[in-house]
Amino acid sequence: MQSPIAFYFDFFSPYGYFASTQIEALAARHGRSVDWRPMLLGVTVMQIMGMKPLMETPLKSDYIRHDKVRMAQLLGVPFADHGLSGVQSVNALRAFLWLKAQDPVQAVAFAHAMYRRLWVEGLDITPAEVSAHEVAVLGGDADALLVAINSAELKQALRAEVQASIDLGVFGAPYFIVDGEPFWGVDRLWMLEHWLTHRSWAASADPVQL
Amino acid sequence: MQSPIAFYFDFFSPYGYFASTQIEALAARHGRSVDWRPMLLGVTVMQIMGMKPLMETPLKSDYIRHDKVRMAQLLGVPFADHGLSGVQSVNALRAFLWLKAQDPVQAVAFAHAMYRRLWVEGLDITPAEVSAHEVAVLGGDADALLVAINSAELKQALRAEVQASIDLGVFGAPYFIVDGEPFWGVDRLWMLEHWLTHRSWAASADPVQL
Repeated sequence: MQSPIAFYFDFFSPYGYFASTQIEALAARHGRSVDWRPMLLGVTVMQIMGMKPLMETPLKSDYIRHDKVRMAQLLGVPFADHGLSGVQSVNALRAFLWLKAQDPVQAVAFAHAMYRRLWVEGLDITPAEVSAHEVAVLGGDADALLVAINSAELKQALRAEVQASIDLGVFGAPYFIVDGEPFWGVDRLWMLEHWLTHRSWAASADPVQL
Repeated sequence: MQSPIAFYFDFFSPYGYFASTQIEALAARHGRSVDWRPMLLGVTVMQIMGMKPLMETPLKSDYIRHDKVRMAQLLGVPFADHGLSGVQSVNALRAFLWLKAQDPVQAVAFAHAMYRRLWVEGLDITPAEVSAHEVAVLGGDADALLVAINSAELKQALRAEVQASIDLGVFGAPYFIVDGEPFWGVDRLWMLEHWLTHRSWAASADPVQL
Protein backbone atom coordinates (compact mmCIF):
# COMPACT_ATOMS: atom_id res chain seq x y z
CA MET A 1 0.00 0.00 0.00
CA GLN A 2 1.54 3.28 -1.07
CA SER A 3 1.32 6.28 1.21
CA PRO A 4 -1.43 8.81 0.53
CA ILE A 5 -0.96 12.33 -0.77
CA ALA A 6 -1.54 14.73 2.12
CA PHE A 7 -3.52 17.62 0.67
CA TYR A 8 -3.46 20.71 2.90
CA PHE A 9 -6.33 23.03 2.13
CA ASP A 10 -8.20 26.07 3.35
CA PHE A 11 -11.55 26.91 1.79
CA PHE A 12 -10.42 30.53 1.83
CA SER A 13 -8.08 30.09 -1.17
CA PRO A 14 -9.34 29.89 -4.75
CA TYR A 15 -6.19 27.92 -5.58
CA GLY A 16 -7.28 25.39 -2.97
CA TYR A 17 -10.53 25.10 -4.89
CA PHE A 18 -8.66 24.59 -8.17
CA ALA A 19 -6.50 21.92 -6.54
CA SER A 20 -9.60 20.23 -5.10
CA THR A 21 -10.90 19.74 -8.64
CA GLN A 22 -7.67 18.00 -9.76
CA ILE A 23 -6.06 16.14 -6.88
CA GLU A 24 -8.23 13.04 -6.71
CA ALA A 25 -7.87 12.21 -10.42
CA LEU A 26 -4.14 12.89 -10.21
CA ALA A 27 -3.76 10.60 -7.20
CA ALA A 28 -5.88 7.88 -8.83
CA ARG A 29 -3.64 7.91 -11.92
CA HIS A 30 -0.83 6.77 -9.64
CA GLY A 31 -2.72 4.44 -7.33
CA ARG A 32 -2.56 6.87 -4.42
CA SER A 33 -5.27 8.08 -2.10
CA VAL A 34 -5.71 11.64 -0.88
CA ASP A 35 -5.68 12.58 2.79
CA TRP A 36 -7.44 15.95 3.10
CA ARG A 37 -5.87 18.03 5.88
CA PRO A 38 -7.28 21.41 6.92
CA MET A 39 -4.97 24.32 7.62
CA LEU A 40 -5.68 27.99 8.30
CA LEU A 41 -3.96 30.45 5.99
CA GLY A 42 -4.70 33.26 8.43
CA VAL A 43 -2.71 31.58 11.20
CA THR A 44 0.19 30.31 9.12
CA VAL A 45 0.71 33.19 6.71
CA MET A 46 -0.11 36.11 8.96
CA GLN A 47 0.84 34.94 12.45
CA ILE A 48 3.72 32.56 11.79
CA MET A 49 5.22 33.97 8.59
CA GLY A 50 4.40 37.61 9.36
CA MET A 51 3.07 38.30 5.87
CA LYS A 52 0.20 40.45 4.70
CA PRO A 53 -2.89 38.74 3.32
CA LEU A 54 -2.34 37.93 -0.36
CA MET A 55 -5.05 40.26 -1.61
CA GLU A 56 -3.58 43.15 0.38
CA THR A 57 -0.10 42.66 -1.08
CA PRO A 58 0.72 45.34 -3.66
CA LEU A 59 1.32 44.17 -7.25
CA LYS A 60 0.73 40.50 -6.43
CA SER A 61 -2.96 41.07 -5.70
CA ASP A 62 -3.49 42.42 -9.24
CA TYR A 63 -1.77 39.36 -10.68
CA ILE A 64 -3.92 37.02 -8.58
CA ARG A 65 -7.13 38.76 -9.69
CA HIS A 66 -6.22 38.05 -13.31
CA ASP A 67 -4.66 34.68 -12.68
CA LYS A 68 -7.50 32.97 -10.85
CA VAL A 69 -9.86 33.66 -13.73
CA ARG A 70 -7.50 32.29 -16.40
CA MET A 71 -6.59 29.30 -14.19
CA ALA A 72 -10.28 28.34 -13.99
CA GLN A 73 -10.57 28.62 -17.79
CA LEU A 74 -7.40 26.62 -18.30
CA LEU A 75 -8.62 23.81 -16.04
CA GLY A 76 -12.13 23.99 -17.49
CA VAL A 77 -13.76 24.30 -14.07
CA PRO A 78 -16.61 26.64 -13.09
CA PHE A 79 -15.53 29.66 -11.07
CA ALA A 80 -17.07 32.83 -9.69
CA ASP A 81 -14.85 35.49 -8.23
CA HIS A 82 -17.06 36.33 -5.26
CA GLY A 83 -16.94 39.88 -3.99
CA LEU A 84 -17.52 38.84 -0.38
CA SER A 85 -15.43 40.39 2.35
CA GLY A 86 -14.67 38.96 5.76
CA VAL A 87 -15.05 35.32 4.72
CA GLN A 88 -13.84 33.01 7.49
CA SER A 89 -13.25 29.32 6.96
CA VAL A 90 -12.80 28.24 10.57
CA ASN A 91 -16.33 26.87 11.12
CA ALA A 92 -16.24 25.03 7.81
CA LEU A 93 -12.86 23.48 8.64
CA ARG A 94 -14.09 22.42 12.08
CA ALA A 95 -17.12 20.85 10.42
CA PHE A 96 -14.80 19.06 8.00
CA LEU A 97 -12.74 17.62 10.86
CA TRP A 98 -15.88 16.58 12.74
CA LEU A 99 -17.15 14.74 9.67
CA LYS A 100 -13.76 13.22 8.90
CA ALA A 101 -13.64 11.58 12.33
CA GLN A 102 -16.95 9.88 11.51
CA ASP A 103 -16.74 9.28 7.78
CA PRO A 104 -13.76 10.47 5.70
CA VAL A 105 -15.61 9.95 2.41
CA GLN A 106 -18.49 12.13 3.52
CA ALA A 107 -15.99 14.73 4.73
CA VAL A 108 -14.49 14.97 1.24
CA ALA A 109 -17.96 15.36 -0.28
CA PHE A 110 -18.54 18.16 2.25
CA ALA A 111 -15.26 19.83 1.26
CA HIS A 112 -16.25 19.78 -2.41
CA ALA A 113 -19.65 21.22 -1.51
CA MET A 114 -18.11 24.06 0.50
CA TYR A 115 -15.58 24.89 -2.23
CA ARG A 116 -18.42 24.90 -4.76
CA ARG A 117 -20.53 27.12 -2.56
CA LEU A 118 -17.81 29.76 -2.12
CA TRP A 119 -15.97 29.64 -5.45
CA VAL A 120 -18.69 28.58 -7.90
CA GLU A 121 -21.92 29.90 -6.37
CA GLY A 122 -20.21 32.90 -4.76
CA LEU A 123 -21.99 32.34 -1.43
CA ASP A 124 -20.52 32.85 2.01
CA ILE A 125 -19.31 29.88 4.08
CA THR A 126 -18.63 31.75 7.31
CA PRO A 127 -21.68 30.95 9.53
CA ALA A 128 -21.80 27.56 11.24
CA GLU A 129 -25.33 27.23 9.88
CA VAL A 130 -23.95 27.00 6.35
CA SER A 131 -21.81 24.01 7.31
CA ALA A 132 -24.81 22.50 9.11
CA HIS A 133 -26.93 22.92 5.98
CA GLU A 134 -24.37 21.14 3.79
CA VAL A 135 -23.99 18.38 6.37
CA ALA A 136 -27.77 17.89 6.32
CA VAL A 137 -27.78 17.75 2.51
CA LEU A 138 -25.20 14.95 2.76
CA GLY A 139 -27.43 13.08 5.21
CA GLY A 140 -25.40 14.00 8.31
CA ASP A 141 -26.64 15.18 11.68
CA ALA A 142 -26.75 18.98 11.36
CA ASP A 143 -27.95 19.50 14.93
CA ALA A 144 -25.09 17.47 16.34
CA LEU A 145 -22.64 19.51 14.28
CA LEU A 146 -24.05 22.78 15.58
CA VAL A 147 -23.48 21.55 19.13
CA ALA A 148 -19.99 20.24 18.36
CA ILE A 149 -18.74 23.23 16.40
CA ASN A 150 -18.34 25.44 19.44
CA SER A 151 -17.07 22.69 21.72
CA ALA A 152 -13.63 23.02 23.26
CA GLU A 153 -12.82 19.57 21.89
CA LEU A 154 -13.44 20.41 18.22
CA LYS A 155 -11.78 23.82 18.50
CA GLN A 156 -8.74 22.09 19.95
CA ALA A 157 -8.80 19.43 17.23
CA LEU A 158 -8.53 22.09 14.51
CA ARG A 159 -5.84 23.95 16.44
CA ALA A 160 -3.84 20.73 16.72
CA GLU A 161 -4.30 20.05 13.00
CA VAL A 162 -3.06 23.51 12.06
CA GLN A 163 -0.08 23.19 14.40
CA ALA A 164 0.77 19.79 12.94
CA SER A 165 0.79 21.33 9.45
CA ILE A 166 3.09 24.12 10.62
CA ASP A 167 5.38 21.58 12.28
CA LEU A 168 5.67 19.88 8.86
CA GLY A 169 6.53 23.21 7.22
CA VAL A 170 3.23 23.76 5.44
CA PHE A 171 3.31 27.50 4.66
CA GLY A 172 0.48 27.91 2.17
CA ALA A 173 -2.48 26.22 0.58
CA PRO A 174 -2.95 24.23 -1.50
CA TYR A 175 0.09 22.29 -0.32
CA PHE A 176 0.88 18.65 -0.84
CA ILE A 177 3.23 16.22 0.88
CA VAL A 178 3.88 12.75 -0.46
CA ASP A 179 6.77 10.43 0.41
CA GLY A 180 8.21 13.37 2.37
CA GLU A 181 8.31 15.63 -0.71
CA PRO A 182 6.49 18.97 -0.28
CA PHE A 183 4.78 20.89 -3.10
CA TRP A 184 3.26 24.34 -2.76
CA GLY A 185 0.57 25.60 -5.07
CA VAL A 186 -1.63 24.41 -7.86
CA ASP A 187 1.26 25.51 -10.12
CA ARG A 188 3.23 22.54 -8.81
CA LEU A 189 0.79 19.75 -9.60
CA TRP A 190 2.92 18.91 -12.66
CA MET A 191 5.88 18.43 -10.32
CA LEU A 192 3.88 16.30 -7.90
CA GLU A 193 2.84 14.16 -10.86
CA HIS A 194 6.47 13.92 -11.98
CA TRP A 195 7.39 12.65 -8.52
CA LEU A 196 4.61 10.06 -8.51
CA THR A 197 5.74 8.85 -11.93
CA HIS A 198 9.50 8.73 -11.34
CA ARG A 199 10.03 8.78 -7.54
CA SER A 200 13.21 10.65 -8.25
CA TRP A 201 14.42 14.11 -9.26
CA ALA A 202 17.30 12.74 -11.26
CA ALA A 203 17.20 13.33 -15.00
CA SER A 204 15.08 10.62 -16.57
CA ALA A 205 14.53 9.20 -20.01
CA ASP A 206 11.49 11.48 -20.05
CA PRO A 207 13.11 14.83 -19.29
CA VAL A 208 11.09 17.72 -18.02
CA GLN A 209 10.61 20.47 -20.54
CA LEU A 210 9.39 23.42 -18.52
CA MET B 1 6.86 39.36 -36.35
CA GLN B 2 5.49 38.13 -33.05
CA SER B 3 6.19 40.07 -29.89
CA PRO B 4 9.07 38.89 -27.72
CA ILE B 5 8.78 37.29 -24.30
CA ALA B 6 9.84 39.86 -21.71
CA PHE B 7 11.94 37.96 -19.17
CA TYR B 8 12.36 39.86 -15.89
CA PHE B 9 15.34 38.61 -13.96
CA ASP B 10 17.55 39.35 -11.00
CA PHE B 11 20.82 37.43 -10.63
CA PHE B 12 20.01 37.19 -6.93
CA SER B 13 17.37 34.49 -7.43
CA PRO B 14 18.25 30.84 -8.07
CA TYR B 15 14.88 30.49 -9.79
CA GLY B 16 15.99 33.24 -12.17
CA TYR B 17 19.00 31.08 -12.94
CA PHE B 18 16.79 28.05 -13.57
CA ALA B 19 14.57 30.11 -15.86
CA SER B 20 17.62 31.45 -17.70
CA THR B 21 18.53 27.88 -18.64
CA GLN B 22 15.09 27.22 -20.16
CA ILE B 23 13.59 30.40 -21.57
CA GLU B 24 15.49 30.68 -24.84
CA ALA B 25 14.69 27.13 -25.99
CA LEU B 26 11.09 27.59 -24.92
CA ALA B 27 10.80 30.84 -26.88
CA ALA B 28 12.50 29.31 -29.93
CA ARG B 29 10.00 26.44 -29.96
CA HIS B 30 7.32 29.06 -30.61
CA GLY B 31 9.20 31.42 -32.90
CA ARG B 32 9.55 34.06 -30.21
CA SER B 33 12.55 36.01 -29.05
CA VAL B 34 13.43 36.83 -25.45
CA ASP B 35 13.84 40.37 -24.17
CA TRP B 36 15.91 40.19 -20.98
CA ARG B 37 14.79 42.87 -18.51
CA PRO B 38 16.58 43.43 -15.20
CA MET B 39 14.62 44.03 -12.02
CA LEU B 40 15.70 44.29 -8.40
CA LEU B 41 14.00 41.90 -6.00
CA GLY B 42 15.20 43.98 -3.05
CA VAL B 43 13.36 47.06 -4.29
CA THR B 44 10.17 45.37 -5.46
CA VAL B 45 9.68 42.76 -2.77
CA MET B 46 10.97 44.63 0.24
CA GLN B 47 10.27 48.29 -0.52
CA ILE B 48 7.12 48.12 -2.66
CA MET B 49 5.45 44.94 -1.40
CA GLY B 50 6.65 45.26 2.19
CA MET B 51 7.70 41.62 2.44
CA LYS B 52 10.62 40.00 4.18
CA PRO B 53 13.39 38.51 2.05
CA LEU B 54 12.42 35.00 0.99
CA MET B 55 15.21 33.30 2.91
CA GLU B 56 14.19 35.13 6.10
CA THR B 57 10.56 34.02 5.82
CA PRO B 58 9.72 31.26 8.32
CA LEU B 59 8.70 27.88 6.89
CA LYS B 60 9.02 29.00 3.27
CA SER B 61 12.81 29.35 3.53
CA ASP B 62 13.11 25.67 4.51
CA TYR B 63 11.00 24.70 1.50
CA ILE B 64 13.14 26.81 -0.83
CA ARG B 65 16.37 25.26 0.49
CA HIS B 66 15.06 21.82 -0.45
CA ASP B 67 13.27 22.92 -3.59
CA LYS B 68 16.10 24.65 -5.40
CA VAL B 69 18.23 21.52 -5.21
CA ARG B 70 15.51 19.22 -6.57
CA MET B 71 14.57 21.78 -9.25
CA ALA B 72 18.15 21.75 -10.54
CA GLN B 73 18.10 17.94 -10.65
CA LEU B 74 14.74 17.92 -12.37
CA LEU B 75 15.93 20.32 -15.06
CA GLY B 76 19.27 18.57 -15.36
CA VAL B 77 21.26 21.77 -14.89
CA PRO B 78 24.37 22.26 -12.76
CA PHE B 79 23.76 24.05 -9.48
CA ALA B 80 25.68 24.97 -6.35
CA ASP B 81 23.86 26.34 -3.37
CA HIS B 82 26.43 29.01 -2.50
CA GLY B 83 26.73 29.92 1.16
CA LEU B 84 27.58 33.54 0.41
CA SER B 85 25.90 36.28 2.40
CA GLY B 86 25.35 39.85 1.36
CA VAL B 87 25.31 39.18 -2.37
CA GLN B 88 24.16 42.27 -4.28
CA SER B 89 23.20 42.17 -7.92
CA VAL B 90 23.01 45.89 -8.62
CA ASN B 91 26.44 46.25 -10.27
CA ALA B 92 25.87 43.18 -12.40
CA LEU B 93 22.47 44.45 -13.52
CA ARG B 94 23.93 47.86 -14.37
CA ALA B 95 26.62 46.11 -16.38
CA PHE B 96 23.95 44.09 -18.16
CA LEU B 97 22.04 47.25 -19.13
CA TRP B 98 25.26 48.94 -20.28
CA LEU B 99 26.05 45.97 -22.51
CA LYS B 100 22.48 45.65 -23.75
CA ALA B 101 22.55 49.23 -25.05
CA GLN B 102 25.60 48.31 -27.14
CA ASP B 103 24.99 44.69 -28.06
CA PRO B 104 21.95 42.77 -26.78
CA VAL B 105 23.40 39.40 -27.78
CA GLN B 106 26.56 40.03 -25.78
CA ALA B 107 24.43 41.18 -22.86
CA VAL B 108 22.62 37.84 -22.80
CA ALA B 109 25.96 35.99 -22.90
CA PHE B 110 27.03 38.16 -19.96
CA ALA B 111 23.82 37.30 -18.06
CA HIS B 112 24.45 33.58 -18.55
CA ALA B 113 28.04 34.02 -17.36
CA MET B 114 26.95 35.86 -14.22
CA TYR B 115 24.26 33.30 -13.40
CA ARG B 116 26.82 30.55 -13.88
CA ARG B 117 29.31 32.32 -11.69
CA LEU B 118 26.89 32.72 -8.77
CA TRP B 119 24.74 29.60 -9.02
CA VAL B 120 27.11 27.04 -10.57
CA GLU B 121 30.58 28.13 -9.42
CA GLY B 122 29.30 29.58 -6.14
CA LEU B 123 31.33 32.78 -6.55
CA ASP B 124 30.25 36.28 -5.59
CA ILE B 125 29.00 38.71 -8.23
CA THR B 126 28.79 41.80 -6.01
CA PRO B 127 31.94 43.80 -6.89
CA ALA B 128 31.93 45.82 -10.10
CA GLU B 129 35.28 44.21 -10.91
CA VAL B 130 33.55 40.85 -11.33
CA SER B 131 31.26 42.29 -13.99
CA ALA B 132 34.28 43.98 -15.61
CA HIS B 133 36.11 40.64 -15.69
CA GLU B 134 33.21 38.87 -17.40
CA VAL B 135 32.84 41.75 -19.86
CA ALA B 136 36.53 41.41 -20.72
CA VAL B 137 36.15 37.65 -21.21
CA LEU B 138 33.40 38.40 -23.71
CA GLY B 139 35.66 40.82 -25.55
CA GLY B 140 34.04 43.96 -24.16
CA ASP B 141 35.68 47.09 -22.78
CA ALA B 142 36.10 46.39 -19.07
CA ASP B 143 37.68 49.77 -18.34
CA ALA B 144 34.80 51.63 -19.96
CA LEU B 145 32.35 49.58 -17.89
CA LEU B 146 34.16 50.41 -14.65
CA VAL B 147 33.83 54.12 -15.49
CA ALA B 148 30.19 53.79 -16.53
CA ILE B 149 29.03 51.65 -13.63
CA ASN B 150 29.09 54.48 -11.12
CA SER B 151 27.82 57.12 -13.51
CA ALA B 152 24.58 58.91 -12.70
CA GLU B 153 23.34 57.96 -16.17
CA LEU B 154 23.69 54.20 -15.73
CA LYS B 155 22.37 54.28 -12.18
CA GLN B 156 19.35 56.16 -13.45
CA ALA B 157 18.92 53.73 -16.35
CA LEU B 158 18.63 50.78 -13.94
CA ARG B 159 16.30 52.73 -11.67
CA ALA B 160 14.05 53.52 -14.63
CA GLU B 161 14.10 49.87 -15.71
CA VAL B 162 13.09 48.69 -12.24
CA GLN B 163 10.34 51.31 -12.05
CA ALA B 164 9.06 50.27 -15.48
CA SER B 165 8.84 46.67 -14.27
CA ILE B 166 6.91 47.74 -11.16
CA ASP B 167 4.58 49.83 -13.32
CA LEU B 168 3.81 46.65 -15.28
CA GLY B 169 3.08 44.79 -12.06
CA VAL B 170 6.23 42.65 -12.00
CA PHE B 171 6.43 41.52 -8.35
CA GLY B 172 9.00 38.76 -8.46
CA ALA B 173 11.65 37.08 -10.56
CA PRO B 174 11.73 35.20 -12.76
CA TYR B 175 8.67 36.83 -14.28
CA PHE B 176 7.52 36.74 -17.86
CA ILE B 177 5.14 38.89 -19.88
CA VAL B 178 4.06 37.97 -23.38
CA ASP B 179 1.07 39.31 -25.33
CA GLY B 180 0.09 41.09 -22.09
CA GLU B 181 -0.11 37.83 -20.11
CA PRO B 182 2.03 37.76 -16.95
CA PHE B 183 3.63 34.64 -15.46
CA TRP B 184 5.47 34.48 -12.16
CA GLY B 185 8.02 31.82 -11.40
CA VAL B 186 9.84 28.98 -13.04
CA ASP B 187 6.85 26.89 -11.87
CA ARG B 188 4.78 28.66 -14.50
CA LEU B 189 6.87 27.94 -17.57
CA TRP B 190 4.38 25.18 -18.47
CA MET B 191 1.63 27.80 -18.46
CA LEU B 192 3.66 30.24 -20.54
CA GLU B 193 4.23 27.43 -23.03
CA HIS B 194 0.49 26.67 -23.02
CA TRP B 195 -0.20 30.31 -23.86
CA LEU B 196 2.32 30.34 -26.70
CA THR B 197 0.76 27.17 -28.12
CA HIS B 198 -2.92 28.08 -27.81
CA ARG B 199 -3.08 31.89 -27.36
CA SER B 200 -6.15 31.29 -25.27
CA TRP B 201 -7.13 30.05 -21.81
CA ALA B 202 -10.32 28.46 -23.05
CA ALA B 203 -10.53 24.68 -22.82
CA SER B 204 -8.81 23.24 -25.86
CA ALA B 205 -8.70 19.91 -27.65
CA ASP B 206 -5.47 19.41 -25.68
CA PRO B 207 -6.75 19.94 -22.14
CA VAL B 208 -4.36 20.73 -19.36
CA GLN B 209 -3.88 17.90 -16.92
CA LEU B 210 -2.22 19.48 -13.91
